Amino acid sequence: MTLTLHAYWRSSASYRVRIALNLKGLSYAIVPINLLREGGDHRRQEYLARNPQGLVPTLEVDGVPLTQSLAILEWLEEEHPLPPLLPRDPICRAQVRSFALAIACEVSPLCNLMVREYLDRVLKLDTAQQQAWHTHWIARGLAACEAMVAGGTGPFCFGEAPTIADCVLVPQLYNARRFGIDLAPFPTLLRSEAAMLALPAVQRAAPEAQPDAA
Amino acid sequence: MTLTLHAYWRSSASYRVRIALNLKGLSYAIVPINLLREGGDHRRQEYLARNPQGLVPTLEVDGVPLTQSLAILEWLEEEHPLPPLLPRDPICRAQVRSFALAIACEVSPLCNLMVREYLDRVLKLDTAQQQAWHTHWIARGLAACEAMVAGGTGPFCFGEAPTIADCVLVPQLYNARRFGIDLAPFPTLLRSEAAMLALPAVQRAAPEAQPDAA
Repeated sequence: MTLTLHAYWRSSASYRVRIALNLKGLSYAIVPINLLREGGDHRRQEYLARNPQGLVPTLEVDGVPLTQSLAILEWLEEEHPLPPLLPRDPICRAQVRSFALAIACEVSPLCNLMVREYLDRVLKLDTAQQQAWHTHWIARGLAACEAMVAGGTGPFCFGEAPTIADCVLVPQLYNARRFGIDLAPFPTLLRSEAAMLALPAVQRAAPEAQPDAA
Repeated sequence: MTLTLHAYWRSSASYRVRIALNLKGLSYAIVPINLLREGGDHRRQEYLARNPQGLVPTLEVDGVPLTQSLAILEWLEEEHPLPPLLPRDPICRAQVRSFALAIACEVSPLCNLMVREYLDRVLKLDTAQQQAWHTHWIARGLAACEAMVAGGTGPFCFGEAPTIADCVLVPQLYNARRFGIDLAPFPTLLRSEAAMLALPAVQRAAPEAQPDAA
């Protein structure tokens, strides 16, 4: 099985998939998609044929393009079940997925490049307004996530092994720091992140470790 | 197993879960959560203890709260596999999930009540600017979804049986009409919606069929 990941080094969704691929111990080629280049690689017809949303990442599996990071993580879990990134108990699986979706639905999409461009170019918000927007949604989302895992025994979000919740959390905290968000109110999230960042597989997935890192 | 759905009649995410529960033939009680009441039922401490994001729906399973509609749909699929709402082939499953996530991540969260309140009260956008915002994200998202299923043989999004893609599509098209979006460019989506709306289980999930419909 040949895996090719079309990704951008600093994209949160790309980072999620890299973490999961590395934790599963899978080999893959990376095709950098430069979102910031004039015109944008993601807007080219060749890329849109693989990913009609024009988003990263796309994982090609023997040439078949899979899109949406959480759908890719579920596919990985089904096809490469070891080590598992979801617990076995159905209620626990739902809780892990809910945590991941709370970030993937209500935080990331409100602060991604498409939205930033709209706030800047269409609504012409000033820098302070744009910062307030990002701070609002990121801090609100992380507060809900902290509540979802506070009281857990750790070290990861949901116990002693990484799950897709951790795969989504690490890129979101990386992103939050870019926006200068105060992370002190989220000690459980920071503990999980520290446990993840201690893993070589996660370190190799870091944005700065990618071939297209600028 | 006792199922209690905390939901708001016109919420897209609540509507998704009602459709899936009905297609699975499951019985459940409904607890209306009035998002528009002064203060908002979803902001009360009692509700936040179940759903830290303060969003609807929450599905209580023997008293254990499950949140995030797509996590609930996955739980339903695992615990009540018949009739299936995901195909068997792993690649096809990924494609169905990707379609559902394209709506659940990049359309719904940009147009939900929390964002509408921010656009109105914080950014003080006028009516035309707010409408332009919603039209932009909904039309863009639906165009990508149309591309993801165009060429399929139907009648549903991914073949001859409903999947979670259809469970997410129907509420999104209902929502798009509220915002006056022109749906003519999306014939494949409209075909899938028509197939869904012909099913009594889907009809019973309609917003207007709910006890709290205003």
